[in-house]
Amino acid sequence: MKAVLVIADGMADVPLKELKRRTPLEAAQTLSMDRIADLGICGMIDVIAPGIPPGSDIAHLALLGYDVMEVYTGRGALEAIGSGVDILPNDLAFRCNFASVDKDFNVMDRRAGRIENEDAAKLAVAIEESLRDDPPDVGDILFKSSVQHRAVLRLSGPNLSPMVSDTDPLKTGVKVLKSRPLDNSREAKRTSEILNKLTQQMHEAVKNHPTNEERISRGLLPANNVLIRGVGQLPEIDPLTLLYGIHPAAIAAVPLVRGICKTAGMRLIPVPGATGTYETDVIAKAKAAVEALHSYSFVLIHVKATDLAGHDNRPPKKMKMIEKVDALTTHLINNVDLDKTFIAVTADHTTSSIKQAHSGEPVPVAIMGPHVRVDDVKEFGERPCMKGGLGRIRGKDLMPILVDLLGKAEKAGS
Amino acid sequence: MKAVLVIADGMADVPLKELKRRTPLEAAQTLSMDRIADLGICGMIDVIAPGIPPGSDIAHLALLGYDVMEVYTGRGALEAIGSGVDILPNDLAFRCNFASVDKDFNVMDRRAGRIENEDAAKLAVAIEESLRDDPPDVGDILFKSSVQHRAVLRLSGPNLSPMVSDTDPLKTGVKVLKSRPLDNSREAKRTSEILNKLTQQMHEAVKNHPTNEERISRGLLPANNVLIRGVGQLPEIDPLTLLYGIHPAAIAAVPLVRGICKTAGMRLIPVPGATGTYETDVIAKAKAAVEALHSYSFVLIHVKATDLAGHDNRPPKKMKMIEKVDALTTHLINNVDLDKTFIAVTADHTTSSIKQAHSGEPVPVAIMGPHVRVDDVKEFGERPCMKGGLGRIRGKDLMPILVDLLGKAEKAGS
Repeated sequence: MKAVLVIADGMADVPLKELKRRTPLEAAQTLSMDRIADLGICGMIDVIAPGIPPGSDIAHLALLGYDVMEVYTGRGALEAIGSGVDILPNDLAFRCNFASVDKDFNVMDRRAGRIENEDAAKLAVAIEESLRDDPPDVGDILFKSSVQHRAVLRLSGPNLSPMVSDTDPLKTGVKVLKSRPLDNSREAKRTSEILNKLTQQMHEAVKNHPTNEERISRGLLPANNVLIRGVGQLPEIDPLTLLYGIHPAAIAAVPLVRGICKTAGMRLIPVPGATGTYETDVIAKAKAAVEALHSYSFVLIHVKATDLAGHDNRPPKKMKMIEKVDALTTHLINNVDLDKTFIAVTADHTTSSIKQAHSGEPVPVAIMGPHVRVDDVKEFGERPCMKGGLGRIRGKDLMPILVDLLGKAEKAGS
Repeated sequence: MKAVLVIADGMADVPLKELKRRTPLEAAQTLSMDRIADLGICGMIDVIAPGIPPGSDIAHLALLGYDVMEVYTGRGALEAIGSGVDILPNDLAFRCNFASVDKDFNVMDRRAGRIENEDAAKLAVAIEESLRDDPPDVGDILFKSSVQHRAVLRLSGPNLSPMVSDTDPLKTGVKVLKSRPLDNSREAKRTSEILNKLTQQMHEAVKNHPTNEERISRGLLPANNVLIRGVGQLPEIDPLTLLYGIHPAAIAAVPLVRGICKTAGMRLIPVPGATGTYETDVIAKAKAAVEALHSYSFVLIHVKATDLAGHDNRPPKKMKMIEKVDALTTHLINNVDLDKTFIAVTADHTTSSIKQAHSGEPVPVAIMGPHVRVDDVKEFGERPCMKGGLGRIRGKDLMPILVDLLGKAEKAGS
């Protein structure tokens, strides 16, 4: 028995006036996801708890069955691992943004005009050189750009603390923040001082860089500052194989989800064309999943762009991305052995197009496959799934339910 | 106000092809349980948690309102108590099986051909004599046969530990296992050594016993070995009377459930004809329950055979046993004072006929009686109850709900 779990990031939404009070998922044409709902059992998932908007990190840890209250140690390390940066216990990892600031350090754009990978990579080299020539007072330091404006900063060595605040003010028109210690320890004071010095040093390294001068000449914003945020350490989690006796693989493009899956002991399947953007090749992902199901008993497919469209409040774009996810599930339905494979579809959180942010409403889920207790729900959507036979469950319940369907659940008691 | 709770062991199941995608409970004729659903409030119970297949021990503790993560200390003691063996705190109790092994100690049958009670009792006497004549190096030891191949072993005294592995390999064609210590303590090492010596001694005591010679001459498998498993200690649980202010009784045939009920401070009502097998006299059980309701405010009725039919993957037999449970509820409905009595029906776990094992799907529940909030569900079954007014609750929630209906719940706060 095999299972494939499709997680469409932020796919769930709220009813929108411009969609005649339907959600993007309800308004989109989703014949295959509707078929999964029709032939399966449906329900609603509070990914963390009712009313709690989960970040994508917490959400994926929960959907993989972990107790996030127990294992969560910040996003930085998970994203760093997903970007190919090794993180050891006790390392501090930060998510960084290339940003644009004016001469008074006021943030003009938190993402430097969503700078292209190539430009970011050149600037990262300049920062690395600066750090090598004039190393800060810390055991070991690494800076690496990942996708677009995103980058990773890793600090290693003694006397460091994750109890420090971010330099990212999270909005434009205000100054870059100073990192501050969040407790009274000497380690936290020291770490925040290192971050503040680094901010200055990285700014000096890139502000007059040819790449930025060239960007300005092209009418683009310069990436003349690095915002530091989301400190994290390596979470101590048991791999899924150990917890559930499954052989798991993951297909995901964005570094954070890749990092979580890798930390959970899942094999990351590389898929050319899977980009984490609106242009991602969902059919390539589906094909890779069908192929992976020959060798792995559990395959997770993550699609990011549904979330982007919600954050950008573009309901028609979100509907289009949802229809791409539906095409992905069509390929799955048509190409897996339905007598031996469970297919589950859900979202990692609601992204409200109205709030343009993650929101606390539960997400719909549908599971089809051999011997599930098929319920009356005929369509996949936020409202139809409210009437489903799974009722209202928690994010961390999903994996045990799938593992039980696979016949791999261990009996409690005897 | 009174309440009677009918627990049909493993009654819940999954949709089966041979029953036209219905479960045995949905396919069976269950007019009385349907009436309870129709006149009552229904829902689904995750006996432990979503996706977790519960053993019968854990399941009954949960349905009696206990937090199994807190109180569970292994099955052995519960089964021993149900077999009439006294267990004190610190005693170790083991479930044992009379089994058939070949001359190389390979297990041929883990249940010695489901040996009859009389044969097992004779062999138990031989073992007791051997233990008296050549006592092992342990404070006190007791061996007692219970039903068919089942027996109980009790070890008492200082320097014993429950951290030891079973000798039961759980399958045939392989050797009887050596018990091993599960931690580094001297007590665990000593206890496992005692068990391994005992295994040899019990084998010697019965291998050439006249009962076994006579079995062989009848073409039956000899019960020439005793498998030791399921170590347990007395759980420290408060009696139901103390927890809920109710006066509880139980009607159950199988030792495990009897042991749990006794440990929970319930009066065990003996019922001739209640056997724990397919032939059990359910009407005798119902009559005993109606009688007991005169003296007790809460009566539990347990029926085992629904579970047996699921383990054996015999859906028609399971339907027949479910119809016997229905006949039991018919007698209850017709003979209790419905103005003053709540009747609840549920299962202790799903037994999937496909897996032939306990499974993690939730079980249906229906409660009828004065002033319950009657919902729209008209039939008792896995799918109909998904739409019930109770929604999806946990096993340990059931007793508080029933106790509240009885008007015995204590207010939290003031």
